[in-house]
Amino acid sequence: MPGKDYSLPLVVGVDVGGTKIAAAVVDAEGRISGRVRLPTEASSPQATLDCIARAVDGSIQEAGIARNQILEVGLGIPGLVDPQDGIGINSVNLSWQNVPVKVRLEARLHLPCTIENDVKAAALGETRFGSGRGLDNLVFLSIGTGIAAAIILDRRIYRGLNGMAGEIGHAMIRPDGPLCKCGGYGCFEALASGPAIAARAEKELQNHRESTLTGMKVSAESVYTAAAEGDALALEVARAVGEDVAFVIQFMALAYEPQLVVLGGGVPRAGRTFLDPVIQALDRQAEENWVFKAVYKPGFLQVTKLGGDIGVLGAAALAAPSQ
Amino acid sequence: MPGKDYSLPLVVGVDVGGTKIAAAVVDAEGRISGRVRLPTEASSPQATLDCIARAVDGSIQEAGIARNQILEVGLGIPGLVDPQDGIGINSVNLSWQNVPVKVRLEARLHLPCTIENDVKAAALGETRFGSGRGLDNLVFLSIGTGIAAAIILDRRIYRGLNGMAGEIGHAMIRPDGPLCKCGGYGCFEALASGPAIAARAEKELQNHRESTLTGMKVSAESVYTAAAEGDALALEVARAVGEDVAFVIQFMALAYEPQLVVLGGGVPRAGRTFLDPVIQALDRQAEENWVFKAVYKPGFLQVTKLGGDIGVLGAAALAAPSQ
Repeated sequence: MPGKDYSLPLVVGVDVGGTKIAAAVVDAEGRISGRVRLPTEASSPQATLDCIARAVDGSIQEAGIARNQILEVGLGIPGLVDPQDGIGINSVNLSWQNVPVKVRLEARLHLPCTIENDVKAAALGETRFGSGRGLDNLVFLSIGTGIAAAIILDRRIYRGLNGMAGEIGHAMIRPDGPLCKCGGYGCFEALASGPAIAARAEKELQNHRESTLTGMKVSAESVYTAAAEGDALALEVARAVGEDVAFVIQFMALAYEPQLVVLGGGVPRAGRTFLDPVIQALDRQAEENWVFKAVYKPGFLQVTKLGGDIGVLGAAALAAPSQ
Repeated sequence: MPGKDYSLPLVVGVDVGGTKIAAAVVDAEGRISGRVRLPTEASSPQATLDCIARAVDGSIQEAGIARNQILEVGLGIPGLVDPQDGIGINSVNLSWQNVPVKVRLEARLHLPCTIENDVKAAALGETRFGSGRGLDNLVFLSIGTGIAAAIILDRRIYRGLNGMAGEIGHAMIRPDGPLCKCGGYGCFEALASGPAIAARAEKELQNHRESTLTGMKVSAESVYTAAAEGDALALEVARAVGEDVAFVIQFMALAYEPQLVVLGGGVPRAGRTFLDPVIQALDRQAEENWVFKAVYKPGFLQVTKLGGDIGVLGAAALAAPSQ
């Protein structure tokens, strides 16, 4: 393949999701080859591990390289992970409880494996290959089906006591807000995740308001599409979600004073209709509040530029040797 | 002096406040001798530095030790500090702008000096001498005339990009809240600092409600005293402040997942009438929300046990050699 430098160390990054497993060979510059995507086999943890191993083997084959050119395999896994011992502690999406991922995969693949929570891996990927390249400290906020932040301090993943640092999807931000999956009320995730955004629009529709969304199957995507087309109800929902997202960003900005906040996950892919209300709310606050203004500098907030590759690139960053 | 072990390294801790400067000799176990307290001479930065030097000299003399037994002087200073270069960047209380504290004091005292923001120093003091002894990670939340948090990670002060990490006194937590000194509305400091608590009570009194506070000069202290005596209005204010403080604690708990949150500053000295409503709100949330419950373990929240000594002990912790 032209342009590829085989003298650079290669790793395999694996994005383990509840519905699909994506693997690819990644070099030290974040260049991707040998993309493989398999539907997640979730009948048992062993079946999922087999599926992961097939994806890794497939990507090496697809990239047309020899197995011994791969230094390591990095895996981003949803849920609670023990990277030290390589255990998948708890993953609702995969129905995993204390799965010895590292030991089993290394026995099968004969390659060293590193695992981490997928959002934490994505945050690391941002500092290696994305907007945070060269930065020491950033907050990565993933807004999709669920919401979590991951924090990079001194170029390393900050985990907190048990890997729960950044679980602000379950910070209660509106005491009168809707019930969350966690049992709490008004959690950030119950207000601004993809399903929550759809639910907010549906609640408005139930008031028989006029909207292009009426009669449609409502999703976060359809809400932002309708907002882009000027639908008043959708614009209102986008504005309300933007205020909640801005609220959490300003708090994290003052709590961590990072160099950068990067947004990832499915919801921000809606583009400007998602981002504009967030930025408007933050700008308004910075205009008034000089302490926040000192932290919220131009370019402080960005949407990931790694797009759909962030999963494999984040996983690869776990394995890639530091520069 | 009996019981004192002069083989332990001694430092001087200096708590530089807007109204008083406290200095003391502190040993590696946090034992204090030679307490000196002077009113802050604030006519000029040099006058304040002279006052600090007199306090240091006085405490060494008072402790009855020789100057060469002091390893170092640590100073906790309000406002923005550059500990690297020893500069007091900005302190409203002291009217300081870019004061070369370290250089000038070292020339005067002939002892190495270390400076840091006072809340950050207090947080470090907690890990050396207080409730956080032996812990790696904690959040220290100081609630007094102002509000700020300081964060200890891996036993070191976490500062963020420019020393503003933890400035959550200026996180906007109620969009409809009162105007804050920073120009913003509904900042945590505008809701739960000492003056803000008094203002909340005064606002209620203006509605001509019956209260033992009527006709009194209202302060946070008098509000909590009235609450302890069962005054309904004061209890309501205490409950509302408790909800706001709990709100910020739960957010910081999920953002950092620390081992411990320690409350300091003047307001928590009110004791149970301050603390109970905070704990009630947190307990309620943990009961519902299993993610928060996983972080909020028994003993997670404590009020500092260092009392009025936290200032000098925190400053001493800056200077004390690590154990």
